[in-house]
Amino acid sequence: MGNVKKVVLAYSGGLDTSVILKWLQDNYQCEVVTFTADLGQGEELEPARKKALQLGIKPKNIFIDDLREEFVRDFVFPMFRANAIYEGEYLLGTSIARPLIAKRLVEIARKTGADTISHGATGKGNDQVRFELGAYALMPNIKVIAPWREWDLLSREKLLAYAEKNGIPIEMKHKKGGSPYSMDANLLHISYEGRHLEDPSAEAEESMWRWTVPPEKAPNKPECLDLEFKQGDLVAINGKKMKAHELLAALNQIGGKHGVGRLDLVENRYVGMKSRGCYETPGGTILLKAHRGIESICLDREVAHLKDDLMPRYASLIYSGYWWSPERKTLQVLIDHTQQCVNGWVRIKLYKGSVSVVSRDSKTDSLFDSTIATFEDDAGAFDQKDAGGFIKLNALRMRIAENARIKRAAKDKGASKKR
Amino acid sequence: MGNVKKVVLAYSGGLDTSVILKWLQDNYQCEVVTFTADLGQGEELEPARKKALQLGIKPKNIFIDDLREEFVRDFVFPMFRANAIYEGEYLLGTSIARPLIAKRLVEIARKTGADTISHGATGKGNDQVRFELGAYALMPNIKVIAPWREWDLLSREKLLAYAEKNGIPIEMKHKKGGSPYSMDANLLHISYEGRHLEDPSAEAEESMWRWTVPPEKAPNKPECLDLEFKQGDLVAINGKKMKAHELLAALNQIGGKHGVGRLDLVENRYVGMKSRGCYETPGGTILLKAHRGIESICLDREVAHLKDDLMPRYASLIYSGYWWSPERKTLQVLIDHTQQCVNGWVRIKLYKGSVSVVSRDSKTDSLFDSTIATFEDDAGAFDQKDAGGFIKLNALRMRIAENARIKRAAKDKGASKKR
Amino acid sequence: MGNVKKVVLAYSGGLDTSVILKWLQDNYQCEVVTFTADLGQGEELEPARKKALQLGIKPKNIFIDDLREEFVRDFVFPMFRANAIYEGEYLLGTSIARPLIAKRLVEIARKTGADTISHGATGKGNDQVRFELGAYALMPNIKVIAPWREWDLLSREKLLAYAEKNGIPIEMKHKKGGSPYSMDANLLHISYEGRHLEDPSAEAEESMWRWTVPPEKAPNKPECLDLEFKQGDLVAINGKKMKAHELLAALNQIGGKHGVGRLDLVENRYVGMKSRGCYETPGGTILLKAHRGIESICLDREVAHLKDDLMPRYASLIYSGYWWSPERKTLQVLIDHTQQCVNGWVRIKLYKGSVSVVSRDSKTDSLFDSTIATFEDDAGAFDQKDAGGFIKLNALRMRIAENARIKRAAKDKGASKKR
Amino acid sequence: MGNVKKVVLAYSGGLDTSVILKWLQDNYQCEVVTFTADLGQGEELEPARKKALQLGIKPKNIFIDDLREEFVRDFVFPMFRANAIYEGEYLLGTSIARPLIAKRLVEIARKTGADTISHGATGKGNDQVRFELGAYALMPNIKVIAPWREWDLLSREKLLAYAEKNGIPIEMKHKKGGSPYSMDANLLHISYEGRHLEDPSAEAEESMWRWTVPPEKAPNKPECLDLEFKQGDLVAINGKKMKAHELLAALNQIGGKHGVGRLDLVENRYVGMKSRGCYETPGGTILLKAHRGIESICLDREVAHLKDDLMPRYASLIYSGYWWSPERKTLQVLIDHTQQCVNGWVRIKLYKGSVSVVSRDSKTDSLFDSTIATFEDDAGAFDQKDAGGFIKLNALRMRIAENARIKRAAKDKGASKKR
Repeated sequence: MGNVKKVVLAYSGGLDTSVILKWLQDNYQCEVVTFTADLGQGEELEPARKKALQLGIKPKNIFIDDLREEFVRDFVFPMFRANAIYEGEYLLGTSIARPLIAKRLVEIARKTGADTISHGATGKGNDQVRFELGAYALMPNIKVIAPWREWDLLSREKLLAYAEKNGIPIEMKHKKGGSPYSMDANLLHISYEGRHLEDPSAEAEESMWRWTVPPEKAPNKPECLDLEFKQGDLVAINGKKMKAHELLAALNQIGGKHGVGRLDLVENRYVGMKSRGCYETPGGTILLKAHRGIESICLDREVAHLKDDLMPRYASLIYSGYWWSPERKTLQVLIDHTQQCVNGWVRIKLYKGSVSVVSRDSKTDSLFDSTIATFEDDAGAFDQKDAGGFIKLNALRMRIAENARIKRAAKDKGASKKR
Repeated sequence: MGNVKKVVLAYSGGLDTSVILKWLQDNYQCEVVTFTADLGQGEELEPARKKALQLGIKPKNIFIDDLREEFVRDFVFPMFRANAIYEGEYLLGTSIARPLIAKRLVEIARKTGADTISHGATGKGNDQVRFELGAYALMPNIKVIAPWREWDLLSREKLLAYAEKNGIPIEMKHKKGGSPYSMDANLLHISYEGRHLEDPSAEAEESMWRWTVPPEKAPNKPECLDLEFKQGDLVAINGKKMKAHELLAALNQIGGKHGVGRLDLVENRYVGMKSRGCYETPGGTILLKAHRGIESICLDREVAHLKDDLMPRYASLIYSGYWWSPERKTLQVLIDHTQQCVNGWVRIKLYKGSVSVVSRDSKTDSLFDSTIATFEDDAGAFDQKDAGGFIKLNALRMRIAENARIKRAAKDKGASKKR
Repeated sequence: MGNVKKVVLAYSGGLDTSVILKWLQDNYQCEVVTFTADLGQGEELEPARKKALQLGIKPKNIFIDDLREEFVRDFVFPMFRANAIYEGEYLLGTSIARPLIAKRLVEIARKTGADTISHGATGKGNDQVRFELGAYALMPNIKVIAPWREWDLLSREKLLAYAEKNGIPIEMKHKKGGSPYSMDANLLHISYEGRHLEDPSAEAEESMWRWTVPPEKAPNKPECLDLEFKQGDLVAINGKKMKAHELLAALNQIGGKHGVGRLDLVENRYVGMKSRGCYETPGGTILLKAHRGIESICLDREVAHLKDDLMPRYASLIYSGYWWSPERKTLQVLIDHTQQCVNGWVRIKLYKGSVSVVSRDSKTDSLFDSTIATFEDDAGAFDQKDAGGFIKLNALRMRIAENARIKRAAKDKGASKKR
Repeated sequence: MGNVKKVVLAYSGGLDTSVILKWLQDNYQCEVVTFTADLGQGEELEPARKKALQLGIKPKNIFIDDLREEFVRDFVFPMFRANAIYEGEYLLGTSIARPLIAKRLVEIARKTGADTISHGATGKGNDQVRFELGAYALMPNIKVIAPWREWDLLSREKLLAYAEKNGIPIEMKHKKGGSPYSMDANLLHISYEGRHLEDPSAEAEESMWRWTVPPEKAPNKPECLDLEFKQGDLVAINGKKMKAHELLAALNQIGGKHGVGRLDLVENRYVGMKSRGCYETPGGTILLKAHRGIESICLDREVAHLKDDLMPRYASLIYSGYWWSPERKTLQVLIDHTQQCVNGWVRIKLYKGSVSVVSRDSKTDSLFDSTIATFEDDAGAFDQKDAGGFIKLNALRMRIAENARIKRAAKDKGASKKR
């Protein structure tokens, strides 16, 4: 094992990272610093502190941070400005949290003089890439320990045995069962992978979903929300201004109640294989729809199309862990520039799993001009005759080509007749 | 007025195109050929024949064609292979029908020796562009008469007056009211524009929608469908093979029953203004979701991403009337090539307005490899250590950059100290 | 003819725009303001003033502006930050000057209270589009008179007749011959179109070229230049700092001497036809090469590739007259952001028509790390073993696909044997 | 060391791969098969056979193949159909040869029952990726030994010592010096890396270049070539039809004579660092220019622009070793489709390092229409008035936006006055 002085561990307080904590101490004989983040995953964090203390971590080496506001304001919202969707469906709920954790790991490493970071992501997934690319970009000489790529505790049984042998408290849920899925949650979403889901032809069990009611059990009456945007970011719901993370939490609560935001898909991991995942993103699903709605009246057509053309690339960068890369930042500059004029409100209707935009307006930035668009008499605002020339010139290259073809065909025919 | 010999008119049998018919006869003193297509819009076509005869069209000059199969097989399905969506939302229901009408207009012009075509699309919309670009591409020297760009009958009142003066039968619905919207329907969708909708901040009336029940009135039990795909095209529903247009009609019927496929949006017209439209695309909404589902296990990641990157461009081409352009055909060659391996089935769940994929598989082309993807012990199918090198090299350029920055900052600091 | 109060005419002082001046006075009975710009085309501007006076323009209505600095600093250099090339070859010399003229026409219209602008570009070319799109974008209700699209003076003979009839001074070169080509010149280039060149299979005459010596007559000794860049812009030649337009003028002079920058091509006009043009862009040819050279050590790979991917779109926007569009400005924001770190020098070698980069460096922003790149022993700076994992994971999706294919082929074979 | 039965080694006969041969025998105790390809690198191959025999390879295990025709016809020419250039400059001479070698390695592995391949590419370069991605794609379970990533012979001294100790014949050039550069040659190019070049601010020595004369020593008279293309591929030079590889060899000879095709650049390797390389690609440089020339009259504008937009992606795929990937093949289908109409001839002028197109034509596929393009009277072929409408509608969205801005500014001003 390499020479490691002090390691900052991304520590959830759960079984896996507790085993890693112990394993790092034993195998690297190094000081361990734990970092536990509140990203809105909806779990108590103080138990993580207690457990870390039990495992011998010094109080000054335990970091527990509430990152909810930063997460939504500086990561989730900028991403939604781009209408980012990976592979047509996935709202990047896990992907967007990792760069913030990477940033904080590095900050704590700097503060504590650590030379190494460690995390509990497997060697088969995207998260290792997201953690490590972020860390390397921000602190190029940091060392990384990814225990799942190194150790031999590759099955749950071995992990539990190691835990018991080392006196690591195992919660009931692990002994008795608990969720069989590999899950990840933060303010943007909760995800499920593994077990039963590893067969993409098998349907997910209803009992798996945690954040949303089944659409069948959602209220029988639709609910409408007025969402207000400023420079592309949500700033108020039904007239009530809140902080970024409060807004998202509120959308999650309302969306979850209406069964909004479930997704079951097969995605392509950056490390090369396909994987099946299920996601609940109630607030994000609403936000994306609404953001497109406000953009639809505020953005110039060609700017909107440019954004659409670049979106899959931007989404792939985030999915693959390149948040801190110069190319993602470069694209963000473009995207943010386009959002200056994205101001106004959108009315959203939620009902039994579906979200729809029913109206929208912008007092300051609407490009909708009803005097031009109308089918009624427009008093000369638009000269319909212009369209003739517009079409004629747009058709010209095709007409030239077809005429050339016809001329040649005629000539060939003439030539073949003469023979 | 230019010199016109014989004109083929895209004739619906409705008031507008009947007035145009008469107006063409009067203003151009030319022979008129009428062409009425069944694209699955759900209207009787024989009345159009009767009306044309009444207006003095010779029987041999009346063309009424059932184009439903060709429409879905050669236009709708190829477009869905690309997962085409315009501006993030619109499924291109009107756009995709126009090129077929253009093609048929030109064919009839050739057959009847006509030198001109005419249509009832306004000078402010996209349809004029779609008709005319198509016609020019296929028959470069065809002449086009677009009465809305020429005449002065610019309000409904003037139109009705002209009709009455010329003995054109006006149906009750026009006199008494009928739908106030400008509508277009075919097997893929029905659209609404105009009137009430011209204010994007006003909600659409429930009474406007015609194809779908309101989600609130949809069945209380979800319904699942098994959709089978071959080379990217739908070929069977619940095991029942049908022709392309029958499949789409069936999806429309089921989707409509479940309140699926409503859309209310502001879009950017090719002629330069924003416009608000409402659409019902029940079958298409299901089809798109299912097609993405089957692609998710059959397509290589990078091929799928290439398609996603090109999709907005392809969709814009269709929206803007470039179906018959060489660039659309070139993109189609690429898209069709990717669909050879898109074979398998998808299970779709419909419920009160929402569509979701719940499972999918491909016996012949699945790229999903559960031995690789599993979170369980994979018996060495995937060497997790490879991920370390993968990440390291992907991070290298960012590490070099940050190290260079640090080195220079240190040097600058050293230099400034010396001073 | 429409109602026009006062018109600002882009006036070169040449025959065509002098005829237009008179024609405007006669046909629109309006006051004419002339605007003549020095963009470095290398012609005296005072004769234009004299001619305008002769044609009855009031002194206060004659604007003659030296726009050379603004042209190169705010138009040419920003464009070169993008390495813009249209259709693989054309450096956009004419295209980039038009938006500045449009801007100035509008400014003068505002200042003089004019309601209309006019220009001498034909109805078949790109320049009309560039002038007018610019003007409309900056002053949406401006009126435009494009005489070539309106009048009947469509041949040179008619034009000369009109001039003589109206006492417009015709210079000797027009009477006796002069250049038979349609030419345009500014600090970035000189272009030739028309006549002899209208047959793309005919070679251009040597006598046509004006700015560059034939490579055969260029000096027999190569010349090297050290070009220094700051934030992507050229700031000094051989250590001598100059203003933007002085730098470009100097490069033109040196490049021309060495026969650098001739181009003969067939391009696709925005209005729909192909056209053959010849161009001399000595300074621009050097600048592009050098700019790519400095970027090669300063830009991150993925940022550079992003720029390369967007470049053709950016170049097309400029070619087609969309400089003042929101989408061009949006792209510019991205491009300019990337140039912050483009600082350093490039050594260029010129010889008989060719330009090559022979060395380059950046003290402040080089990302070239010789300790990593070296083929010699690098003392562990790069762990070659990482490459194995990098390749393995990048190959994974292809290996899974091929393995799946093999497995199925084997199964099919097995199945067919059993039958 | 892993379990290896039989290994196919890409064997040049040079020192490095001879040492690898011996090292494989010693360290893996496996049977070695050697494969030496003639790709037009201009070296005798029989010495490689002799050396292999000396090192104990069985005659049946020695493969020496002339791949020149296949190389140019199936790899180089398809790539040139795309006008592929990496990072604005590099013609991909090394990149395009690797996939063919990978293919042949795998074919020989299949034929000889080998389970492993090996090559002499370093762990820092692109070639290892190109070899291995190709091999994995074509034979997913092949094993790869890349000695440079495994062994400790990391300096030239150690390598020479190992050779002498093991009786491997060392040629004079290695003892006495020879070229100090790391070189690679095939019919498309010769490349130089390493040593002196590792400082990008140092100029390359004139003595380094091998294929081209210095432009200064090239003939004092230009030479013209008529190149004929069929479906995008070169088929004849000056009327003389030849096979693909003969044509490229002929272009190399002529181009080299005129000093054409030298390139000195810093490029971004796929493995993450920048590297400086020098290249001579005389024939390729001519071919690219000529291919763009013939495309300029045969390709539709939008098809050409689509190709230009996709080109950097296609070039990056080849550079990074993805020739055998499904995405490269998918792009190739598109590119090849566009080349059906690329037929005709181009006249090229070569002079002291520069290449230029002077004329071009296509009897069968020209889209150049002089009656439309002419500046002279076109007898009504093009109605200039159409341009007015074309511009008006293209400007519409910008005018609406600016008018909206003005209206709001006026209102705000009004509002602020009232206060």
